[in-house]
Amino acid sequence: MTKMIAQLIEQRFGLPSAAGHDTPAEGELAAILSHRTHRRYTDTPVSEDLMQQVLAAGLSAPAKSDLQQVAILCVENAGIRQAIAELLPSMPWVAQAARFLVVCGDSRRIRRICELRDVPFANDHLDAFLNATTDAALVLQNLIRAASAVGLGTCPISVIRNRVRSVAQVLELPPGVFPVSGLCLGYPAENGYVSMRLPPSVTVHVDRYDDSKAADEIDAYDRRREDRFRTPKDKQRNVARFGYADAYGWSEDKARQVAEPEGQEFADHLKETWFKL
Amino acid sequence: MTKMIAQLIEQRFGLPSAAGHDTPAEGELAAILSHRTHRRYTDTPVSEDLMQQVLAAGLSAPAKSDLQQVAILCVENAGIRQAIAELLPSMPWVAQAARFLVVCGDSRRIRRICELRDVPFANDHLDAFLNATTDAALVLQNLIRAASAVGLGTCPISVIRNRVRSVAQVLELPPGVFPVSGLCLGYPAENGYVSMRLPPSVTVHVDRYDDSKAADEIDAYDRRREDRFRTPKDKQRNVARFGYADAYGWSEDKARQVAEPEGQEFADHLKETWFKL
Repeated sequence: MTKMIAQLIEQRFGLPSAAGHDTPAEGELAAILSHRTHRRYTDTPVSEDLMQQVLAAGLSAPAKSDLQQVAILCVENAGIRQAIAELLPSMPWVAQAARFLVVCGDSRRIRRICELRDVPFANDHLDAFLNATTDAALVLQNLIRAASAVGLGTCPISVIRNRVRSVAQVLELPPGVFPVSGLCLGYPAENGYVSMRLPPSVTVHVDRYDDSKAADEIDAYDRRREDRFRTPKDKQRNVARFGYADAYGWSEDKARQVAEPEGQEFADHLKETWFKL
Repeated sequence: MTKMIAQLIEQRFGLPSAAGHDTPAEGELAAILSHRTHRRYTDTPVSEDLMQQVLAAGLSAPAKSDLQQVAILCVENAGIRQAIAELLPSMPWVAQAARFLVVCGDSRRIRRICELRDVPFANDHLDAFLNATTDAALVLQNLIRAASAVGLGTCPISVIRNRVRSVAQVLELPPGVFPVSGLCLGYPAENGYVSMRLPPSVTVHVDRYDDSKAADEIDAYDRRREDRFRTPKDKQRNVARFGYADAYGWSEDKARQVAEPEGQEFADHLKETWFKL
């Protein structure tokens, strides 16, 4: 029997789907709905020809005002890769992936263009940072899709932002160029799994943002996730501070995660090097 | 003769491609490389079933730390749509598109979860804003790809950030939820065109960021773009301030664009409503 898009939607949200019952699960839409992150890769190299195709596709994303404020660093030098991997010891896939990219926001290029064209740059405020960040994120997502389309697995590494000073130093990033995310690429060595998402009743709103029912919906989401993949007791986060919870789930885990300060270095680095926020 | 990926790369950059000569231009990679923005749509409605498929696919993007800090507003009320369209008079497609979404960063949900789980939120700094922004941008790009996969055209509307106070008021966005981009969707009424991108020699770097040759490369890019679509003299930007340029191109146009202050309202709004940057 042909699989239908509805089945992929059900897999994504762990809920029955009202949509896509008449649509065969094939092509690009099915691929997007089936997205999985891959953290283990085979030793098969990714050819230069294929990387150029993936990079070109990634760079085909829309860009805010056509400013194209993105720069992609392809880390090919083994010493540089190792130095970045050592900053992120909990993520051995950074060292192991066939290819590793760092997708950066680039506010330097437009400022240099202003100098070259003898025109003043009048946007040295949060917008400069925000626009470059969104351009980079759009390219990042397009790279993930493009890689998937040619059979590669990917894992975005946003945590490099927490080590931004060291990453910027290792890559000798000039002021105005800042990492938004790393990206591991390689041929997948395992199937991975579909990450269950919050239901559209929580994330999609009609006309008005309405989270009046979110508390119950998040409880139900926690249970659906735990029914699919139970969190082992020894994976509960920060029990030294919070103890063991009987009903542990996504929301408890995420609350405990954001209870620890993280990422302050990023703002400090931006302000010290270039940006007015 | 079968079209090859190399030909799509050449179209994207206006330069010969060394890659993709052996790869037939089909499937998802070819679709990504062929991306076009569409600003004119037919009157054909986009069914609710199809929208749910597109939304589900969009929400399948990776999310920073699985926090899923995104909210999508589907603007269905005609009065609300009209109010937003009136804020953006240069973009009549906001009123005309079959569907209009506002993709938002959502830092409110995780803070509510912290309250529900009785855990302190320790990340009230730039990171909260940045992570929600990148989550929203990844979903935005996934929505664009998903829409394209089912035959819909899209146009992202990042300029709503410049009218963030009014947009937040019209949509009654609560503190912590901020628009990253609007998105028009509809069946395309015209072909659109492939936006020529800066060459990978400018945007892709191996191991070290190197823009030592960027000035010449940008000059050459300006010429390639003008060779494809000449900028009419009456489309030169802000001639009252800068006069007419003999050699007008992308870089001159973008320099003139960022010479005008834009988007300060966004940072002010964020700081006034919720965020510490």
